[in-house]
Amino acid sequence: MAMKGVIASAVRTVASSGSSASSTTFTSHLHASAGSKKIVGVFYKANEYAELNPNFLGCEERALGIKDWLESQGHKYIVTDDKEGPDCELDKHIPDLHVLISTPFHPAYVTAERIKKANNLQLLLTAGIGSDHIDLKAAAAAGLTVAEVTGSNVVSVAEDELMRILILVRNFVPGYTQIVNGEWKVAGIAHRAYDLEGKTVGTVGAGRIGKLLLQRLKPFNCHLLYHDRVKIDPELEQQIGAKFEEDLDAMLPKCDVIVINTPLTEKTRGLFDKERIAKCKKGVLIVNNARGAIMDTQAVVDASSSGHIAGYSGDVWNPQPAPKDHPWRYMPNHAMTPHISGTTIDAQLRYAAGVKDMLDRYFKGEDFPAQNYIVKDGKIASQYQ
Amino acid sequence: MAMKGVIASAVRTVASSGSSASSTTFTSHLHASAGSKKIVGVFYKANEYAELNPNFLGCEERALGIKDWLESQGHKYIVTDDKEGPDCELDKHIPDLHVLISTPFHPAYVTAERIKKANNLQLLLTAGIGSDHIDLKAAAAAGLTVAEVTGSNVVSVAEDELMRILILVRNFVPGYTQIVNGEWKVAGIAHRAYDLEGKTVGTVGAGRIGKLLLQRLKPFNCHLLYHDRVKIDPELEQQIGAKFEEDLDAMLPKCDVIVINTPLTEKTRGLFDKERIAKCKKGVLIVNNARGAIMDTQAVVDASSSGHIAGYSGDVWNPQPAPKDHPWRYMPNHAMTPHISGTTIDAQLRYAAGVKDMLDRYFKGEDFPAQNYIVKDGKIASQYQ
Repeated sequence: MAMKGVIASAVRTVASSGSSASSTTFTSHLHASAGSKKIVGVFYKANEYAELNPNFLGCEERALGIKDWLESQGHKYIVTDDKEGPDCELDKHIPDLHVLISTPFHPAYVTAERIKKANNLQLLLTAGIGSDHIDLKAAAAAGLTVAEVTGSNVVSVAEDELMRILILVRNFVPGYTQIVNGEWKVAGIAHRAYDLEGKTVGTVGAGRIGKLLLQRLKPFNCHLLYHDRVKIDPELEQQIGAKFEEDLDAMLPKCDVIVINTPLTEKTRGLFDKERIAKCKKGVLIVNNARGAIMDTQAVVDASSSGHIAGYSGDVWNPQPAPKDHPWRYMPNHAMTPHISGTTIDAQLRYAAGVKDMLDRYFKGEDFPAQNYIVKDGKIASQYQ
Repeated sequence: MAMKGVIASAVRTVASSGSSASSTTFTSHLHASAGSKKIVGVFYKANEYAELNPNFLGCEERALGIKDWLESQGHKYIVTDDKEGPDCELDKHIPDLHVLISTPFHPAYVTAERIKKANNLQLLLTAGIGSDHIDLKAAAAAGLTVAEVTGSNVVSVAEDELMRILILVRNFVPGYTQIVNGEWKVAGIAHRAYDLEGKTVGTVGAGRIGKLLLQRLKPFNCHLLYHDRVKIDPELEQQIGAKFEEDLDAMLPKCDVIVINTPLTEKTRGLFDKERIAKCKKGVLIVNNARGAIMDTQAVVDASSSGHIAGYSGDVWNPQPAPKDHPWRYMPNHAMTPHISGTTIDAQLRYAAGVKDMLDRYFKGEDFPAQNYIVKDGKIASQYQ
């Protein structure tokens, strides 16, 4: 597809909403001391795909399209996809980098150990949303600032979740597999294909992404439920027609489809273990584009094998990249992909613009848009607590 | 999934809307003469899948769940999936059957030749929607009645279309394929994955299914276009925010995504040939759950190979079942399945109820719900002209 006008307008929206937020919150907390900065970016490598799309900014080869801009201001910009192991490229730069840019799609795991070695580090920027690959407590204790491009890919992820709901409810994957294998067995698909209409869909978490998903589900005439720490705005709740469920374990047995939309925190790590999955309806379909570690890996495999989970789809794994022998690759009735939902071309353009905007503010000693902060002044944002 | 309450309520809705329609149109045109009738049903075989779901009514083994009911009234009910070739089971019964029940998913092609041999034939019922597998002109000339279960699976098909739009826009299939092949290459997916938001989606045809699709697309913030013979109701048009395009060839170059929602008629057969596909935007995504013969098969293959079509998804083929060497199985960037979108379990329950309702009326000499008629009193319904 070619939609330059649309994309340019989306990028302008992100940039301008950033500007207006800063004008009301201008008190400088993060000062880039004068002089050249060393900035390291960790991105997935595109290899032969890099040249296929000029807007493919999120790969290592294009590195958000900010290299010339950074270097013209005298800064040093190192990019790599080599983030693991004792001799990896990232670790060579940990001792003297000032800024680390990372993504959830090819996460540079910023452990307490790495933070300890990073004597010059001031700023950790996530190109996208989701900073759980960073040890936020250690970052807060070290006085670092962590920020995301909040909003840059929430629509991207919500759309992808609705796609996965439909893929599971309609039993798409066996149909596609039949075709490429030269087969034609309608019954092999139809015996477990349903309409989404009339089914009960519950989201665990109704933050930015969860709300966008519920809005997109509205015309499908489902029963919509949500569980969160707080109720959503009453007007929006009524408009969407979603019902608040204070008790997660009371909501789960009602749902034909469950979508995970909560950040990975100490409270949500392993939230869906064997016991909690057993509370779900037999034949439940689960969509998880949030984080792989919210699920107990083996519990998902076991429930998919027994049929208690009738379908599981998502793009998040623990760890990432998923090793070749990750059991979710081989369990029945899955519709898994690598971590892609938040890195559409549209999302890349928005999070590239958002990172550039924050770097510019950092160099100028200006605050970021308030909603972007994950760790600031030693405090961790509420959604990560 | 297990949702008996929902399904029962859906079946009641279909049955009761049928009853109310008939009460205002009661003039008997089709008389079942007294005595036993021979009814033949042609359905896809389920084999090992038949026992996996008690609501799997659309397969040969369950034959719409009406066998006991028909036999208790003294009728004969033959069911088969054997519909092709000189010695096929269907042809053995053509000379003396009174009613033929067929489906679009495993179509019994009712040619002029078969109609000529069918001396007792009065009624052709399509379990589902889409009666283009019947030679409607020959049926009209022979004084036969043809009827569908209008509305029984329009929601099913519209949901499936939205799934396919997202699958193409988000580039799902290569992601899934990577996972099952033990790979992890985010770039191989992301370089051509987009958000649906902001893109232009056009439907060719805005009848029952097209309208339901547009309603479901509304919250995705796309630019929505539609081409049809007539404009849709102004209130609904405004509510959906879709723009009417009188000239199909003027609409096509505007669309990032094109969805086919027109019946197969003499006018639409081969509508998307080489020349018309060339009028579409380079990189267009096409979804076709309508009928395979609306497309020129080879033109789709050529445009998919050149990249002019960046993705093609649908469940309809010409002919069906698609032979092992059908080129759409092997063209690049497709997301094809066998013909399944209208045969979800929910849809099967609705069209089984609708067929039973029409048979009951036929035995009693009552009219069918008016919207179900495709051929009546020698006239073909307007959407098939």
